[in-house]
Amino acid sequence: MRRAEFEIKDENEFEKLLKMANYGTLCLNDEPFCYAVPVNFIYYKKAIYFHGAMFGRKYELFLKNQNGSFSVVKEYSFIPSYFNSDLACPASQYFMSVFMEGKLLLVKENVKKAEVLDALMNKYQSEGEYLNISRNLEKYLGMLNKTAVYELQIASWSLKAKMGQNMKQEQFESMIDKLQKRGFSEDVSTVKMMKDLRHM
Amino acid sequence: MRRAEFEIKDENEFEKLLKMANYGTLCLNDEPFCYAVPVNFIYYKKAIYFHGAMFGRKYELFLKNQNGSFSVVKEYSFIPSYFNSDLACPASQYFMSVFMEGKLLLVKENVKKAEVLDALMNKYQSEGEYLNISRNLEKYLGMLNKTAVYELQIASWSLKAKMGQNMKQEQFESMIDKLQKRGFSEDVSTVKMMKDLRHM
Repeated sequence: MRRAEFEIKDENEFEKLLKMANYGTLCLNDEPFCYAVPVNFIYYKKAIYFHGAMFGRKYELFLKNQNGSFSVVKEYSFIPSYFNSDLACPASQYFMSVFMEGKLLLVKENVKKAEVLDALMNKYQSEGEYLNISRNLEKYLGMLNKTAVYELQIASWSLKAKMGQNMKQEQFESMIDKLQKRGFSEDVSTVKMMKDLRHM
Repeated sequence: MRRAEFEIKDENEFEKLLKMANYGTLCLNDEPFCYAVPVNFIYYKKAIYFHGAMFGRKYELFLKNQNGSFSVVKEYSFIPSYFNSDLACPASQYFMSVFMEGKLLLVKENVKKAEVLDALMNKYQSEGEYLNISRNLEKYLGMLNKTAVYELQIASWSLKAKMGQNMKQEQFESMIDKLQKRGFSEDVSTVKMMKDLRHM
């Protein structure tokens, strides 16, 4: 990463971001362009899992080339320029994002597919209220056989946070103060994350 | 797109999505992987514009290969499986997303750079309260000379909406009813968009 002051190497922050995020953008080679598609996903046992159909552009590209990258973003507050200056330059978007590269494979066994899909359901529908897939494999066989469950084996990740880490203490406290006074709904989580990263 | 019922060909919807979105994911070739990076952007005069530094990974990759793709997502409601079944299968994420491919170039002239950056400021800081860049070029010359302003010339776009368009009228009305009863904050905009797309 070009600006080392924005890089976060703490694996806990990496995992927290993945748990919080609703979707990631999967990128696959499709010369002369990269193909990008948003997917819901689960970070489970140190890998990224998502599902799809056994046909279509994502599936066809995967069959040709198993190199996948995956980008996840969490937006925080927009910092208006006038917090710092009369000029436009200090306007800034606070955010955290992670970029991953790795090999993609298809989960083949129905037992493992069911386990992953239950984990996915637990993330998005944590209240339950559905027939557990692993414990009702026979009811789900048709679905399992036609669902492609992808695993991205994470070879590398790079986590970037633009959350005021590069500020001197006085500036940092002044920014916290301005965000608290503004009080947009996203400012609460921004201030919390700014402090968390500061005290890591 | 594999499932034609989810494709939206209306350019107004395409433009509305781009105006609403805070960031897009830029994808660049970086064999053997695609590199993906989130950027704030403005859709302006039929092109995508974003900015960056004149060094770093994005800039270096752009110098090598000007083919860029760009993905923008708007999330709508998560539809729990129990709205429709005891099984997990009907769980669904409603969303709209657009995928674009095109050629990237750098805006060279400071007058055009200033115009684009003012448009960007107007999107993210619509309340103004900064010295307009175009009208104060001399104050911004240092910044303009070191800022890379990218233009993505959109060669193709593909807009996908998963918003219940494939439902029969009775199912559709039942879904609207369930979302209104649930009343999560995102359900309001989901219902509005479902109806807009239905009556297009």
